[in-house]
Amino acid sequence: MNSGSLSTLFSPRTIALVGASRKPGRIGYEILRNLRADFRGKVYPINPGVEEVQGLRAYKSISEVPEPLDLVVFAVTPRDTLKAFMIAVEKRVGAAIIVSGGFKELGGEGEEIEGKIRRIARESGVRVIGPNCIGVLVPRHGVDTFFQSRGRMDRPRHGQLAILSQSGTYAATMTEWAVRSHIGVSKVVSYGNRVDVDEADLIEFLADDPDTAVIALYVEGVEEGRKLYEEVKKTSFKKPVIVYKGGKSGGAETAILHTGWLAGDYPVFHFAMRQAGAIEVENTYGLIDAAKALIMIGPIERGGVVSVTNGAGPVVVGYDLLERYGLHTSTLSEQTTAFLKEMLPSYCQVSNPVDLTGSADSGFFDTALGALTEDINIDLIFAFLVLQDTPLDEGIVDVLSKHKSRKPVMVCAGGGQYTERITSTLESIGVPVYETAERMMEAASALKRYGEKKG
Amino acid sequence: MNSGSLSTLFSPRTIALVGASRKPGRIGYEILRNLRADFRGKVYPINPGVEEVQGLRAYKSISEVPEPLDLVVFAVTPRDTLKAFMIAVEKRVGAAIIVSGGFKELGGEGEEIEGKIRRIARESGVRVIGPNCIGVLVPRHGVDTFFQSRGRMDRPRHGQLAILSQSGTYAATMTEWAVRSHIGVSKVVSYGNRVDVDEADLIEFLADDPDTAVIALYVEGVEEGRKLYEEVKKTSFKKPVIVYKGGKSGGAETAILHTGWLAGDYPVFHFAMRQAGAIEVENTYGLIDAAKALIMIGPIERGGVVSVTNGAGPVVVGYDLLERYGLHTSTLSEQTTAFLKEMLPSYCQVSNPVDLTGSADSGFFDTALGALTEDINIDLIFAFLVLQDTPLDEGIVDVLSKHKSRKPVMVCAGGGQYTERITSTLESIGVPVYETAERMMEAASALKRYGEKKG
Repeated sequence: MNSGSLSTLFSPRTIALVGASRKPGRIGYEILRNLRADFRGKVYPINPGVEEVQGLRAYKSISEVPEPLDLVVFAVTPRDTLKAFMIAVEKRVGAAIIVSGGFKELGGEGEEIEGKIRRIARESGVRVIGPNCIGVLVPRHGVDTFFQSRGRMDRPRHGQLAILSQSGTYAATMTEWAVRSHIGVSKVVSYGNRVDVDEADLIEFLADDPDTAVIALYVEGVEEGRKLYEEVKKTSFKKPVIVYKGGKSGGAETAILHTGWLAGDYPVFHFAMRQAGAIEVENTYGLIDAAKALIMIGPIERGGVVSVTNGAGPVVVGYDLLERYGLHTSTLSEQTTAFLKEMLPSYCQVSNPVDLTGSADSGFFDTALGALTEDINIDLIFAFLVLQDTPLDEGIVDVLSKHKSRKPVMVCAGGGQYTERITSTLESIGVPVYETAERMMEAASALKRYGEKKG
Repeated sequence: MNSGSLSTLFSPRTIALVGASRKPGRIGYEILRNLRADFRGKVYPINPGVEEVQGLRAYKSISEVPEPLDLVVFAVTPRDTLKAFMIAVEKRVGAAIIVSGGFKELGGEGEEIEGKIRRIARESGVRVIGPNCIGVLVPRHGVDTFFQSRGRMDRPRHGQLAILSQSGTYAATMTEWAVRSHIGVSKVVSYGNRVDVDEADLIEFLADDPDTAVIALYVEGVEEGRKLYEEVKKTSFKKPVIVYKGGKSGGAETAILHTGWLAGDYPVFHFAMRQAGAIEVENTYGLIDAAKALIMIGPIERGGVVSVTNGAGPVVVGYDLLERYGLHTSTLSEQTTAFLKEMLPSYCQVSNPVDLTGSADSGFFDTALGALTEDINIDLIFAFLVLQDTPLDEGIVDVLSKHKSRKPVMVCAGGGQYTERITSTLESIGVPVYETAERMMEAASALKRYGEKKG
């Protein structure tokens, strides 16, 4: 494998766009805008019909571009893609991204053309992403081949999460969920039909990428199961690989239509991923929810949890899921219990959960967290907050900030505008917040599963 | 049962607050503010220590209030609650809400006092909500006994959903989720320890409440299972009852602590609710997600679905869940297929899903929905939208508005700020939108389950 050119893909110095358009709303227009937005290298629009696009000189063909090209993006029909790709290979470009659809997923001529591109890619060693994808986003290097305009799709800051997705839709959605969750992104790759580069190649590359600490993968069908298994197995010793599999059952036929590959046998996939040390999540939210916890907190080796709350309903829902997610309730030490009984008002319940009641202000949480973070029976603390409750002042932000370095703390808080505002503040200081108990439990489970793996 | 006084509870003309406070942040201060915010009747603060609270004359005792009281809210210690409640009963008040905690859930004296209040309530016929709850919210009549300030908790508009919750936290959270989902609320009742009024009484009342079209219930332990079963069974012929049960397994001990009652045997609960025709949801999001679908769309009799999309990833995830949720894919009629193949560009896939690809603008959806809404093989249409995709213009709002009256349409769209803005616009015109395929499928299932029940 030629992973040198994958590195070119993520940090090119020159990019050409085949199919650059002058018409706003057209895919070739939007990609050019996004390519130019933050990229500090040179961008060459390719369009034989015009002299100039968005103020840049347009070139009739890749062959006319006066310098070497690290990356070529294709946003034209399959036939035109094939022609231009052959020229690109002759020019010895670094890597290619084929955004356009209409290939294997449609059958017929598109499928044939995809086969030709595959052969040429394999023979020439030019690495190709796509077709039928939205390409690559690398905030650190200003690389952005997405066709979603910036007014339509929020871009993340540079950070530790790599997002890989067979589906362009999930690539876009997960990227925006990362923004909303206050986690930065190292790379996003929507790889679509994977004519050449597949999820296993990307994971192999990311395993040694110093910018990437956590990998989240949305995958439907897998073509080379053994290869994926091997790469996940090697990588999961270095960093967590979170996986969601679409097309488990009834979705299979859709997956065939959508990306051109059989969905495969889910139980085999599930077993292989477990053996390989991947963290498979059950909900699409779980990809980003688990990544957020792993980035903000990191793995935990044992699964003893305690909750502290000013409103226990969601604790009940959360505790229903503990066993399923490999967690268990810790018993407070005698010392913790004695201390909290002494320090907290008598109407508080000192047990697990520690129920501070709706009368709690941030001082109650400060007292409780002060003791709980020192209790060696406890591996992970859940703060179930009712931020709506007026006695709870905004000092809770500082309280959580103060205690989180001594013991992992995750927050559950569901509500409306005010809750969303405090959630945002908490996440910006590195405290992961979940809107439902269910989502927090799945994320907590990822910490434990990765801790066991590393342990 | 005396459901006359439940009606007093929801539309009182006079309200007294025992424990009215002059100190911002105190529960007795916040309740008084909320009680006065929209209520057009008279509010009497009760506080023996002061002359005036928030500009209102304070009364030393309920007995001093110069007119009959329809509703008395208690926000004082259990002992003071008992004393004041006895006076309230003597004054023949209409109904009582005990917000305070420290009763049965703490054991000891609190539990004893709760027992006394129960006996007095039963003997006198004064209906009591609580203790250990946040009380009642009735937007239509400006009744708001919540202690969450308006800056902290968004209030809903008047509408068709009744929210019942054993947990105050879920009462607040579900209410705010209703706001976010653009559905109005008829009543919210947080009933806590249910010393007197329980979920079955409330359901019995709401069955005949013309303001309520859908009931959503969060419940942990059930004290009188048979009574709940009977009321749900009667009510579910009139309107949908959506249920989430907390404390299914490991959460049980928490439920005991939290509300003073055993969590009960979940499989029995599950079976009883199914027999009674309730719609039990698997996720806490499901309570509001299903309510939104039932209010905006209404039940469907058969479960044949078709999807139309400009990005099929989430369709794959959604279709994995169809069977589990009692739905199935419909086959497009020959006429629909022929029409769409003629009218749509050749790169679109005319099948189920109808994949319009990332090149689709709202005109593509208009064409597709025009045919799909006329196809008698189809009972429900899922529009899986990638709102981020720049070719898709905002005309999609009008397109959905135009077609939704001819066939039920649900939308799945996940993303960031732009997607949230369009989601909000769509929901404000009555098109339910879901951020994940999983949430949409659970909501769709509720339409089908209630349709079968009514069918």
